[in-house]
Parts: sequence; C-alpha cells; structure tokens
Amino acid sequence: MPDYSVAVSELPHAIEWKDGELYLLDQTLLPQQELMEQQRTVEQVWQAIRELKVRGAPAIGIAAAYGLCVALKDRVNLSVNEFIKMAKEKAAFLDSARPTAVNLSWAMKRMVARLDQVPKITSRQLYESLIEEAEKIHAEDIALCQGMGKMGAPLIKDGMGIMTHCNAGSIATSATGTATAPMYMAHQNGVRFKVYANETRPLLQGARLTSWELQKAGLDVTLITDNMAAHMMATGQIDMVIVGTDRVAANGDVANKIGTLGVAILADYYQIPFYVACPSSTIDMETACGRDIEIEERSGDEVTTIMGKRIAPENIKTRCPAFDVTPNKLVRGIITENQIITAPYDEGLREFFKGKENG
Amino acid sequence: MPDYSVAVSELPHAIEWKDGELYLLDQTLLPQQELMEQQRTVEQVWQAIRELKVRGAPAIGIAAAYGLCVALKDRVNLSVNEFIKMAKEKAAFLDSARPTAVNLSWAMKRMVARLDQVPKITSRQLYESLIEEAEKIHAEDIALCQGMGKMGAPLIKDGMGIMTHCNAGSIATSATGTATAPMYMAHQNGVRFKVYANETRPLLQGARLTSWELQKAGLDVTLITDNMAAHMMATGQIDMVIVGTDRVAANGDVANKIGTLGVAILADYYQIPFYVACPSSTIDMETACGRDIEIEERSGDEVTTIMGKRIAPENIKTRCPAFDVTPNKLVRGIITENQIITAPYDEGLREFFKGKENG
Repeated sequence: MPDYSVAVSELPHAIEWKDGELYLLDQTLLPQQELMEQQRTVEQVWQAIRELKVRGAPAIGIAAAYGLCVALKDRVNLSVNEFIKMAKEKAAFLDSARPTAVNLSWAMKRMVARLDQVPKITSRQLYESLIEEAEKIHAEDIALCQGMGKMGAPLIKDGMGIMTHCNAGSIATSATGTATAPMYMAHQNGVRFKVYANETRPLLQGARLTSWELQKAGLDVTLITDNMAAHMMATGQIDMVIVGTDRVAANGDVANKIGTLGVAILADYYQIPFYVACPSSTIDMETACGRDIEIEERSGDEVTTIMGKRIAPENIKTRCPAFDVTPNKLVRGIITENQIITAPYDEGLREFFKGKENG
Repeated sequence: MPDYSVAVSELPHAIEWKDGELYLLDQTLLPQQELMEQQRTVEQVWQAIRELKVRGAPAIGIAAAYGLCVALKDRVNLSVNEFIKMAKEKAAFLDSARPTAVNLSWAMKRMVARLDQVPKITSRQLYESLIEEAEKIHAEDIALCQGMGKMGAPLIKDGMGIMTHCNAGSIATSATGTATAPMYMAHQNGVRFKVYANETRPLLQGARLTSWELQKAGLDVTLITDNMAAHMMATGQIDMVIVGTDRVAANGDVANKIGTLGVAILADYYQIPFYVACPSSTIDMETACGRDIEIEERSGDEVTTIMGKRIAPENIKTRCPAFDVTPNKLVRGIITENQIITAPYDEGLREFFKGKENG
C-alpha cells in the first residue's frame, strides 16, 4: 500500500500561526520574492484578502479565522458582551473582503458560532476559544487536502498530461492544495505525468504560483498561455483537467477563476474528463445553481496592466469578471475529501451531505 | 446606397513607401509609441518581419515586396543575370523570416515572377519593374480590404456584440484590415455595435493593437483577457466572431493566431457564428488541410515575459505555438473580397477560384 501522506513541510506555506501571531505569504510578490508578512491589524488581513496576497478559497477561510483572532487580541479587556459584539463586527468586516469565496463566510460563521458554544466567563477565554477554532479549521484543512489527494490520485496514470487552471495548489490551502492534492500524491507514489499550467490572466496565478510550486516540488510542469489550451488538447497532449473551485452550487454548477468555463467547454469538445477538486466546505447547498452566484467584477487595471506594465491604450473600456460558472453537465466529477461525486449532482450532493451527517 | 469607402487616411498606416524608401510602423512599441522606422537594409526588413514589428499576413506580404526593392536598390549596376540571381536570393531570404504566413511566400513568388515577364534590358529597368509590382500588390491590398468590408458589413446589425482575436486590423494590412474591414464599414454606415477584443497572449496584439486602432477610429471597443471569452459568450454579450487568418487550406481549415481555435469551439458551443475574413491570396489551394500547415513554435520567453517583465519562475518549461488550426466545420463563412464562402468548403473554394479565373 502506497504511503498517502505527502511531506507537507517541503511545500511552501501560505499561512503560519506562530506564538499568537499571524504570518501570510504575500503571493502577489511571487515568484520573484518569498515574503512572510506579519499581520498586525484586522485591516491588514482584510487588505491581504482583498488584494489577493492570500488567495484560494481554503486559505482565505483559514487566514480570516486567524485574522479574527488578530482583530480581538487586544480586546480581551472588554466585557464579554462587548467582546462578542466586537467579534461579530470584525467577522462581518472580514467577510466583506471578497464576495465569491464561500469559505470566507463559512469560516466567519463558524468562528462566531463558536462563541455561542463556550461558557461566557471571560473575554480572554472567548479569545482563546477562537484561536482553538481557527487552529481546528487549519488542521481540518490539512486533513482535507490529504483526503482529496487520496481520492484523486488514482485517476492519474503514467504518461498522462494534466491541465490545471489558476492556482488551486498548496498555497491556496494550508497543505497540498485542492486540484494539486491528487498530483502531489500521485507524484509521491512514483506516477510519471506532465502538468500543463494555464497562466491564468489577469493575475497570472498559473504562471506565478502554480508553475512555481509544482516546479519547486519536482513535478514536470509546463507553462502555457490560457489561449494555448485548445491547441494542447487538439494535439493530444491533455488527458485530464483538474481545477479547484471557489463555490459549488447544490446542482453541481462550479464557480472558479475566470477562464475555467472555457477550459471545461474545450475539454468537453475533445472528450477529455474535467474534474473539480474541493473540500466539502466549498459546496454551498444554499446556493441552488450557478446563476445565483455573485460574480465579482474587479478593476479594469488588472486587464490593462500586467505587474505594473501598461499593455493597453489609455481610457480603453474593459470588463474584468474574476470568476465564471461552469455548468454541471461539463463536470466529470467533484473530488472531495471523502469521495468523488458524479452526476446527477442534485442527488449526488444531497446524498453526500446526508452521508456526512450520518457518518 | 451607403458609401462603402472608408477614409483610409484616417486609419493608422503600417507601411509607407515614399520617394523610393520603405517605412514600417514598429508595432512592438504600440500603444506607447508610434514610430515609423525607415528600412535601410534587407536584413532590417527580415528582422522587422521576424520580430513582428510588421505583422499580419497582408502587411507582411507588402512589406516583403518593398523589402526586396530595398535589397536591390544599390544593385542596379550588376549585370542583368547577376541582378536576377541576387533578386532570387534575397526573395528566398525574406521568405525565410516567418514560416506560416502564406502571403509572404506568395509575394516573393510574385515579385520574382515579374522579372520573367519584363524585357531584360537593364538591371535598373528590372528594379523599377519590381517597385511597380510591389506598388501593385499594395494597391491591390487596399482594394481587397474594401471588398472584404463590402462583403462583411451587412452581417453586422445594430446592437450586436462582435468578438475578435489578435489583430487583423488596419495595421495588419495597408488599409481597413481583414477582420476589421466589415467593422469599419458598418461603423461608417452608422451601425451601432460593440467590439470585444481578446488581448491575445503572448504578444498582446489585441490589447496593444486592435483596441488601440479601433478606439482611435471611434468604435466602441472593450478589451478582455483571452480567458474571459467564454464568460462573455455565456452571458449573451457576443453575437458574432470575426477573425483574420494566416492561411486557409483547400478544405477550409483555418490557421490563425494561437487562441483562435479555442474561440471557435466556444462560439460553436454557444451557437454563435464564427467568421474568418481574408483576401483570397490567403487561401492556399496547395495546402490540402490544416494538418499540412506548419505551426511555428516561438521562444518560451514570450510566455514567461510580458513587455520585459518576468512573470514566471526561472527555468520553467514552456510551450509557445504561435498559431493553431480551426477545423472547417467550426467556420460559418470565409469573408473574401468577392463573396462569403460557406461550407462545404472543398467545393466552395474550388468554385470560388474557378470563378475568379474566368472573371
């Protein structure tokens, strides 16, 4: 039986919580510079999430959970009621940093709920229970990555070419990533395969992050521009697509980084299986379908400027949707920590969560 | 009856031939700087073509035709035989600058053939006949753009959203462009529509060139990244796609800038008509199908670097195909200077050229 644990310590870390202080890897500086930046205020954490210094649905959730602790560290002298009120305010504030990622509001809800579950004796005790909860979310994420790796790795065979889009990698989580978890595990098991990383404009997470972390971990990764995906598929170099997601709706529609929909349609055209990997916390049973997912429109500067370089004429009109929605019919399977869920998704996802509740 | 002439002088020029000297717009500097660079040697012209200072199939053909004149300007003292030998050598040299664009070899063949058609009295006379031929190719291109505009403009209706990829615009030709010719003409006829320009990585011709020239000409143009195309189609903003091409095979397969294939597949998925616009010189009846078209692989630096800025880790593997091939079944019509050719293309293209020979 192969060893399914991946040496997480060898992978880059996006989030560190050390001696009551939060450090976030500033991913906007990659791959040129690796900077772990201490987060001293909740505004700084909010901004780190807003400006994509920390990104990836699971990592955002963990960062925000610790971020709430940062916000309340100096408030333990408040009365219990005032502390709780403050905690709710700061949680709502952090929740407002990005609209699409379900893990952000999921983590904030969970942190606030924790306050209802503990005896309300002192604010310090409440604060400590929040740290506990954040550490629990963090530890769970590591286990979730292991689970997705274990579920997804058997899909990867010797000689395959696997395409991924954006970064759903180790630094989008706190461990082996979502889309990358099966890759890291298959790699560790000695499977030989190639990864094709789409650069993922506008913010180039594929070029700056995915190719960086996979290369660092010793995987065979090739960087292409987004618009080369069709040619790679047409010329038989891609056998599977695995991407992450920011939110899966109850019907299996998938919101993910802009460009994912295009890759899914191309994969469908060439009959290449298209998988989505995510922890079950990313599946939002309260969102009926993709149409109900708010798509964040970001600044046009992201389109007209690349790493500070202007690439377009002044005053040009732009659009900048940060995400798109891939309809469920294009998704071959959703790789979670417990199982690979397949169509029909309405039923599959309902059963999955029923099973989790019972199990 | 609307006036089908577009005021070409208002559009930017890629190529100028003035007092026996060739000037090329250095398109690699756009949109920051508009530089008309005098071409003093054939090596300089070769390099301008190679480095995409001049680009777009028709413009390359015209530039190379004048480039051959530049090469021979100081050789009129050679004997007639030596002059012809030199002309053939320089034509072959220019032809080697880019492998995919059929107009380049077409123009070189035509220039060399001209030498066989004139009385071989003096080298100066031969040189002057070459200038005449280059000017004829140039004038024909202007007429071709007019023709494509006239054929394609009626497809464009009020309120439409039109997507284009790369730059098949005025500066890819010597007049109103290929893909843009119908747009410029419809615009001049008072039709109100939006253009969505894909930025077209790696070299960003859509961001730097298409959005620049359309904006300059007063069209309503919106710049998006390549991977936003699917979302724009999914949300109903695109009613038609028009692109240019570097080579159409005898079966209607279309080689064009990398990413075109992806756009065509997306358009097919959303049942959006996908048109290709080109002069008939771009249709290569000697190339049976797309598989026979050599796809130029360019330097990986184009993927890892954007306008001098490094965006990827050192030593990352890349692929960099400059073109892809769109199969004929995805093409709704080929807009030429004489007619819009539709499927079945084998037959349609054969008939088209038969008609041209007879007419």
